Amino acid sequence: MNPTRALNYARIHRSKFVSELKEFLRFPSVSSQRKDDITHCAKWLARHLQSMGMEQVRLVSTRGNPLVFASWHEAQHRPTLLIYGHYDVLPGEPASNWTTPPFTPTIQGSNLHARGAADDKGQLFCHVKALESYLRTCRCLPVNVKCLFEGEEEVGSTHLLPFIAKHKQALRADVAVISDTKMLGPEQPAISYAQRGGLRAEIEIRGSQQELHSGTFGGAVLNPIQALCEVIAGLHDRHGRITIPGFYDDVRTWSEGEREYMARTGPSDEKILHDAAVEEGWGESGFSLYERTTARPALTLNGIVGGHYGPGIKGIIPNQAVAKMSFRLVPDQDPERVGRLFREHIGRITPAGVKSSVRTLSPVKPAVIDRKHPAVQVAGFAYKKGFGAYPVFLRSGGSIPVVAAFEEHLGIPVVLMGFGLPQDHIHAPNESFHLPNFYRGIDTSIWYMAALRKALERSSRGSSSKQVEWNP
Amino acid sequence: MNPTRALNYARIHRSKFVSELKEFLRFPSVSSQRKDDITHCAKWLARHLQSMGMEQVRLVSTRGNPLVFASWHEAQHRPTLLIYGHYDVLPGEPASNWTTPPFTPTIQGSNLHARGAADDKGQLFCHVKALESYLRTCRCLPVNVKCLFEGEEEVGSTHLLPFIAKHKQALRADVAVISDTKMLGPEQPAISYAQRGGLRAEIEIRGSQQELHSGTFGGAVLNPIQALCEVIAGLHDRHGRITIPGFYDDVRTWSEGEREYMARTGPSDEKILHDAAVEEGWGESGFSLYERTTARPALTLNGIVGGHYGPGIKGIIPNQAVAKMSFRLVPDQDPERVGRLFREHIGRITPAGVKSSVRTLSPVKPAVIDRKHPAVQVAGFAYKKGFGAYPVFLRSGGSIPVVAAFEEHLGIPVVLMGFGLPQDHIHAPNESFHLPNFYRGIDTSIWYMAALRKALERSSRGSSSKQVEWNP
Repeated sequence: MNPTRALNYARIHRSKFVSELKEFLRFPSVSSQRKDDITHCAKWLARHLQSMGMEQVRLVSTRGNPLVFASWHEAQHRPTLLIYGHYDVLPGEPASNWTTPPFTPTIQGSNLHARGAADDKGQLFCHVKALESYLRTCRCLPVNVKCLFEGEEEVGSTHLLPFIAKHKQALRADVAVISDTKMLGPEQPAISYAQRGGLRAEIEIRGSQQELHSGTFGGAVLNPIQALCEVIAGLHDRHGRITIPGFYDDVRTWSEGEREYMARTGPSDEKILHDAAVEEGWGESGFSLYERTTARPALTLNGIVGGHYGPGIKGIIPNQAVAKMSFRLVPDQDPERVGRLFREHIGRITPAGVKSSVRTLSPVKPAVIDRKHPAVQVAGFAYKKGFGAYPVFLRSGGSIPVVAAFEEHLGIPVVLMGFGLPQDHIHAPNESFHLPNFYRGIDTSIWYMAALRKALERSSRGSSSKQVEWNP
Repeated sequence: MNPTRALNYARIHRSKFVSELKEFLRFPSVSSQRKDDITHCAKWLARHLQSMGMEQVRLVSTRGNPLVFASWHEAQHRPTLLIYGHYDVLPGEPASNWTTPPFTPTIQGSNLHARGAADDKGQLFCHVKALESYLRTCRCLPVNVKCLFEGEEEVGSTHLLPFIAKHKQALRADVAVISDTKMLGPEQPAISYAQRGGLRAEIEIRGSQQELHSGTFGGAVLNPIQALCEVIAGLHDRHGRITIPGFYDDVRTWSEGEREYMARTGPSDEKILHDAAVEEGWGESGFSLYERTTARPALTLNGIVGGHYGPGIKGIIPNQAVAKMSFRLVPDQDPERVGRLFREHIGRITPAGVKSSVRTLSPVKPAVIDRKHPAVQVAGFAYKKGFGAYPVFLRSGGSIPVVAAFEEHLGIPVVLMGFGLPQDHIHAPNESFHLPNFYRGIDTSIWYMAALRKALERSSRGSSSKQVEWNP
């Protein structure tokens, strides 16, 4: 199937696509907070897919936020592509740190600014608009397609993972594609072939039942904030290693070949420091910053609160303090085991005089994808067509919970075809999506669907992957 | 002057006094927040003093919250008593932790519950109602009186201290009395003869200019929360001593006699733990909990905040974290010097990869009062009359900024005649004032004014303090 007409349609309709993306971004679909906005956003997306010509469009209720499902399978005897994305976003607070309001999408130069612009509404929309470009021009697609868009990625995909386990048949496909990762730069595509796993944790330290006067009791009672700080300070040693006994037991040692490949293809320390806007690196000695953020596990503090932190002063010893943190895990660490080790460790190191409790949630398994798989290799071809360059293969430091679930329950490879850029400020104020990447992402998706059919058919006939024109 | 009529008046008007105190407590006069409520409260107090028959009643504007001043000096050739109190209070948040709303005064059993009930509106009001009891019955007072009630005690008396330095003449008196401290129990009065000094400090740690994705950068960038925790954890050694170099240089070593006196008169470790509602003590080894909270300095964390601490989760490396803390200082530490040592120390120990800034504010000098002074001894007599028991002499762990200022600028002793109880929950939710202490506090103030005249006159004629009937 020749993608020319679809590509033409996409080129002609760019400004319409941008208007529609802005509509999509206007929903403050913050998964941790706004149930109503989440539902409105999901309904809008479902209606949008329906109006484009997708079939079996459904809003699937879960105990959490709804899933949006759509499919098209009139391409008999052809492979099936499962497209995953998420329509939920992180909070926009503090809005005062944004130059434009987080849910008022605004174009500045070549970038569209809004919470979720890159993560993940804009990237998800590349595939949606590619589907539209085919359906509006020839009423058909080169492959069968299933779309699965969730509303809880930013809070750990709690209800999606059991849904996948339960609906293996309905979700059956030959390959899954996810665009929720980054390229190296506007002209440097990248395919993520590894995702760190994750685990969220909260430590609460409690002292007295009540706040105490810091004059009356200061010096005689262990302060929960101080105890929490001591616990946290003790979680890393001076070599930047995590001190939880047994934590590194299952961390896979990569071959020298793999480390060389990473050194050759991945970002330099300087690049990572520049992207983070910090002057100095930190972390586990003996590893590059790229390795520390992808091939090695990490524990990062996400938030802390205790006592009186608002305006003014209050001379108290608070009665409790809480810290929120995230583990990033690598093969072959098991998040459940890490959670257990962590809870035991915190129990052991909590100082006398206070009590601690630990909550762990959102376990996500790490994943590594075979970069020789034809469905992955053909993505390189599509990038070359869409962006004019072959991608490099990169590891990602983040955690997309669904990747491991697709591999485990559906037994299919997952192609992480990112269209984001390092400067997109995802998870930060002033998140944006680079509009040229939006247009090229749509073209890439159009090319990918066209090429995927041949690649997988060749592959199932037993052809060697060497027949694919590009080989990483 | 016989106090019988005043005492009778006070006994008859108890329910009126309680109603008036409730009116006083209804103002949410939070010094750190509510300028309007502060002013309304100050005006109410001034009108109240005026209506009782006090003279020269003035609302004194400052650059901060107004002072309420009143005097009565028709007792020619008699000593002058300066009564200090504060009408400002701490915030009532979180209101959800209160069983009754903090600014809806409510009687439960023998206690009146409201923010400020004990600290300090209720205790201040004991003296106000004693003055009323004299003025309403004989239109005169046994001694000359000046009242100075401030609205910034809870935020460091920033504007009162320069006011005192500037108005020495107008404030001239022979002795000052302050009721803003605690007794040991309902039947065990106590006079505080030492106050710790204080210094507030804030540490801010900054990392990148922006929040970073904890997946993308976790493991390669020093987390400001972690850095702050490391800095805080390092401020005490494992013996509970503060690690700032030079911090203990000026700490006075007390004689064995003084330590024995403290051990005999002060609360036991068990009592302090019980009052704090904790099972285990903490702090500087080699000292009792009473010593740690009064005769030894302390550094306590009042609040901490950084990153995402609200509901839900947010996978970020935050760009900053802040901690608020209070030093409690003892003779002969100088708060300005401690502030300098602290700033230098934090600068030295801030880890590479983040930046720190330190703000110090509200320096208060420590103070020790001569417990043999006749004006202090006669307070013992007044307690015996009002509460049926002689007081013990205690050190306080808190800081009343005005004590050192009265000593320094007016050259007068300060009698810390507390009517609060350990179970009053001051600075905490469900603050209350024990109503029997309110009534007995009024009687004690009535007796104190009557006896003070004779005591100071004797004293100025050169009589030895042994002539006073009670000797600590």
